[in-house]
Amino acid sequence: VDVGDRDALIELMEPLHAADIADLLEQIDSPDRRRLIALYGVEFDGDILSELDESIREEVIGVLNPDVLADAVRDLESDDVVDLLEDLEEPQQQAIIGALDDADQMVVRQALSYPEDSAGRLMQREVVAVPEHWSVGEAIDFMRGKEDLPEQFYHVILVDPRHRPTGYVTLGKIMSAPRAQALQDMTEDSFRTIPVDQDEEDVAYAFNQYHLISTPVVDDEGRLAGVITIDDAMIVLDEEHEEDMLRMAGVSEEASLSDNVLETMRGRATWLFVNLVTAIFASLVIDLFSDTIDQMVALAVLMPIVASMGGNAGTQTMAVAVRAIATRDLTGQNARRIIRRELVVGALNGALFGLAMALVAAFWFGVPMLAVVIGSAMLMTQVAAAFGGIVIPLLLDRLKIDPALASGPFVTTVTDVVGFFAFLGLASWVLL
Amino acid sequence: VDVGDRDALIELMEPLHAADIADLLEQIDSPDRRRLIALYGVEFDGDILSELDESIREEVIGVLNPDVLADAVRDLESDDVVDLLEDLEEPQQQAIIGALDDADQMVVRQALSYPEDSAGRLMQREVVAVPEHWSVGEAIDFMRGKEDLPEQFYHVILVDPRHRPTGYVTLGKIMSAPRAQALQDMTEDSFRTIPVDQDEEDVAYAFNQYHLISTPVVDDEGRLAGVITIDDAMIVLDEEHEEDMLRMAGVSEEASLSDNVLETMRGRATWLFVNLVTAIFASLVIDLFSDTIDQMVALAVLMPIVASMGGNAGTQTMAVAVRAIATRDLTGQNARRIIRRELVVGALNGALFGLAMALVAAFWFGVPMLAVVIGSAMLMTQVAAAFGGIVIPLLLDRLKIDPALASGPFVTTVTDVVGFFAFLGLASWVLL
Repeated sequence: VDVGDRDALIELMEPLHAADIADLLEQIDSPDRRRLIALYGVEFDGDILSELDESIREEVIGVLNPDVLADAVRDLESDDVVDLLEDLEEPQQQAIIGALDDADQMVVRQALSYPEDSAGRLMQREVVAVPEHWSVGEAIDFMRGKEDLPEQFYHVILVDPRHRPTGYVTLGKIMSAPRAQALQDMTEDSFRTIPVDQDEEDVAYAFNQYHLISTPVVDDEGRLAGVITIDDAMIVLDEEHEEDMLRMAGVSEEASLSDNVLETMRGRATWLFVNLVTAIFASLVIDLFSDTIDQMVALAVLMPIVASMGGNAGTQTMAVAVRAIATRDLTGQNARRIIRRELVVGALNGALFGLAMALVAAFWFGVPMLAVVIGSAMLMTQVAAAFGGIVIPLLLDRLKIDPALASGPFVTTVTDVVGFFAFLGLASWVLL
Repeated sequence: VDVGDRDALIELMEPLHAADIADLLEQIDSPDRRRLIALYGVEFDGDILSELDESIREEVIGVLNPDVLADAVRDLESDDVVDLLEDLEEPQQQAIIGALDDADQMVVRQALSYPEDSAGRLMQREVVAVPEHWSVGEAIDFMRGKEDLPEQFYHVILVDPRHRPTGYVTLGKIMSAPRAQALQDMTEDSFRTIPVDQDEEDVAYAFNQYHLISTPVVDDEGRLAGVITIDDAMIVLDEEHEEDMLRMAGVSEEASLSDNVLETMRGRATWLFVNLVTAIFASLVIDLFSDTIDQMVALAVLMPIVASMGGNAGTQTMAVAVRAIATRDLTGQNARRIIRRELVVGALNGALFGLAMALVAAFWFGVPMLAVVIGSAMLMTQVAAAFGGIVIPLLLDRLKIDPALASGPFVTTVTDVVGFFAFLGLASWVLL
């Protein structure tokens, strides 16, 4: 790129997959990116745009020559175009829609009319559907005669006269069946339809739970509107996981390494602020016992251990609970049993580490009662951590708040407050 | 189940998908589970076993009537049987292998000879492969003539005379092409092969990155050994995410809600122990300054705030870094730029929250110099958190240790030690 050798660049990039080129564009910095794109010119492919991270994508679209952009977009399937448009600002959206031909424009505009993160946004409109009473031979002839079959399809969908899907047959079965066989006798048990306004998270769950490969999407009246394939579901699943992981760590879910400094800072500051408030709250608890600490400074030395162990145990339980809620393994029916089990685990670990810490404290400071105090405080904090770690995510879930989003600060506040209160309270009661 | 009405139970369970029955079995407790299985009897399906969580699966297999078990297993595809066997104890493994017919026994034994978590374990042996010089018509006739096509297949794989895959054609394309067309002219660009000993994590990455649907697996000499399909890759991806999330929270990756209390306790205790050691280490830092705290107890009240804010910021950066390493967005090439960016973000947030906390401290305790001390300590800790949060995962990754596994304790130790040291050190220097 530095010497501006266009042919060498194109030769170098030629064997790369669009996803790898996108990764490359993400990893270099902004001026390099501009120069590379300018140099790469008309070779720029729509697939690269699809693969790019959102924050970079906007920049790249801004830099691309409008003709190149129009060419690039025209080759994409309708669901990829929709995915591309979703995150763009209005003027860029219009520019891209304008580049499409009329039929595609209509399709894309309709897709954008579905709610964000719904099955309607995810699906591709290109489907292969045949009347339910057809035979294998009729279906094969139909496909042979059709000019533009979708790039990816795995099932032939059977529809009734009102275009409502009633079943599907895998291409593999059609391949191996005699021409005269009725399609209706070969349908798969796994068949299920997804309403067009279903949340994409539920769609991904269904694909994962029932091992679906592709599944028809239906509109309000049950008519076939499109098809969602497993690769789309896999992307959603991947995004959901990323969201959960980042949210649990208190990072806004849109975070990416390609964001600029200010965006990154804003994404983190919100939770740091919440944490500041909760940390001050925990400090108020300590302040209650400042006289006690004044008389025995060893308490100040040891109290972070109690809080830190509690915070850790709470985070462990919380991660398991958030994950189990996401995979629907933790529900109202078994909640009580799971809470009981977590409390037992918390009590056992609390007893174990309480004892260990009591021994450490006894040797360190040589005050037997201090050992008793820290041991008991540890036990109480571990039980509280187990309780908070599972009850808080469950509660948030019932309140329709994503448990991953808000559990962290609440759980550590509970463990900090209980930890400081138990340790310093016991100390002022027993030791002074 | 309580009244032992077998017919009603079977009728109730009939419309359920195997995955849902497995979820049901996981959610009820052990005695109920035994009774349900005894009652359900011969209706018990191999798919249910595949869907069950490992810890429950062993129990269920132990309870099942051997004949029912043998029947259940015989219906499964080879990759599902392997998946089932992997996690079982030796005697249970042998019992199940014994129930298979000879050909399947050999296939399963060979699959088990590949390393754990490798492509060889993941792949199915049932493939559709034809000579590379065949035409569409020949391939269709071959498939028509074949008795047992795999349940799931999406491509016809082309192989050379030595059975090495050279390309593949989608079923959709075969459907729509004239019989005389050569398969070689219709192959997909996405074609790539996976070595049989490749780690399943890399397999899942390739499926996700390149949007693969199925891909041939080859042995050491490049010969076709099997096929991995996207549904297998999706399961691996899901497991990897779960591992990452749980590991980051310090829970052993095998954790599940169905584990018993002792297993759960052991899974958590390891990291709690590591945390205890690092927390004691942080307390030693506080102990260094016990004289300072003795003279000004406000320090003990405020110091957890500095540590907690540092820990939070460190966890945020770490989550982003661990995720970016997993998706290969953070590599050696851009590490320096990303570290620089994180440091700037840390400094900005440190300045912001340092200032906020300085104001709070000034009002709370009325000691202006204390405000200066906590503000500066906050700034230093935030920068250290940013540095540790990104450098520690990168370092662990370079040492071939999973960054998700071990980053947590190291990062919080760094932020605790830096936080206590900066705050108490500055205080003893400036205030006394």
